[in-house]
Amino acid sequence: CPCPLPSGDTALSRLVRRLLSARRSLDLCLFSFSCPQLARAVQLLHRRGVRVRLVTDSQYMGLCGSQIGRLRHAGIQVRHDQHSGYMHHKFAIVDQRMLITGSLNWTTQAVQSNRENVLVVEDAEYVKAFLEEFERIWEEYNPANYSFFP
Amino acid sequence: CPCPLPSGDTALSRLVRRLLSARRSLDLCLFSFSCPQLARAVQLLHRRGVRVRLVTDSQYMGLCGSQIGRLRHAGIQVRHDQHSGYMHHKFAIVDQRMLITGSLNWTTQAVQSNRENVLVVEDAEYVKAFLEEFERIWEEYNPANYSFFP
Repeated sequence: CPCPLPSGDTALSRLVRRLLSARRSLDLCLFSFSCPQLARAVQLLHRRGVRVRLVTDSQYMGLCGSQIGRLRHAGIQVRHDQHSGYMHHKFAIVDQRMLITGSLNWTTQAVQSNRENVLVVEDAEYVKAFLEEFERIWEEYNPANYSFFP
Repeated sequence: CPCPLPSGDTALSRLVRRLLSARRSLDLCLFSFSCPQLARAVQLLHRRGVRVRLVTDSQYMGLCGSQIGRLRHAGIQVRHDQHSGYMHHKFAIVDQRMLITGSLNWTTQAVQSNRENVLVVEDAEYVKAFLEEFERIWEEYNPANYSFFP
């Protein structure tokens, strides 16, 4: 494989390990997703039978290097906004119990070159708020609600 | 004043109220800062004698609508990176005890049009980690360390 999972003790490998701890579900709400290592981890979980849902931004999902097409081809459910504003969240929820959120877009540029932060939170109050936001967006971006012909 | 502080119970007015609760210090680490209401709140704190320090991204601070120049004119200390990677954090620390962080860039577009999240955290462990990152960046971006002539 041209893109092995990261090893050693880097911020990226720690993030990947958190994701790979998922047993039942992974809910992703990501403005931009071009980092191949993170996409590989998500695909691996999907193949293991973890329910993966991904919400992303319509203006960024088609950019060069985006992993969204590849994930869709792999059979992962993806939904996106249809607004001019950005779906600017960058969070993941593992098994409805662990929230991973911060400034980090899931791009190679961000991982390699930027000053970024990622918080890992298991406090139920925070997890609940982000889960509710995820479910709200998931429904709002349901393709059944598209209004291309207003 | 052309830009009154926001009133009512909006996400922006709640953010401004958190900021205005500062009595001693406000440490800001912001990728992009163009929202005039937030700039006004920061200026108000500076005038009240609160120690304001601001770290920002060199590639974004000169963009149209940026408030960085205005804040510098008001006498607020600003430092910026000198890298090609982004200083992509978007957090504030009030009185070294309250952390405000998330996906939200302090821009009008983000406030008005995007899906965003802002976490307010008073847990000492998280506040400490972000304070340490702030102090690290503040030192690293000290103009005394500029290396324009390598």
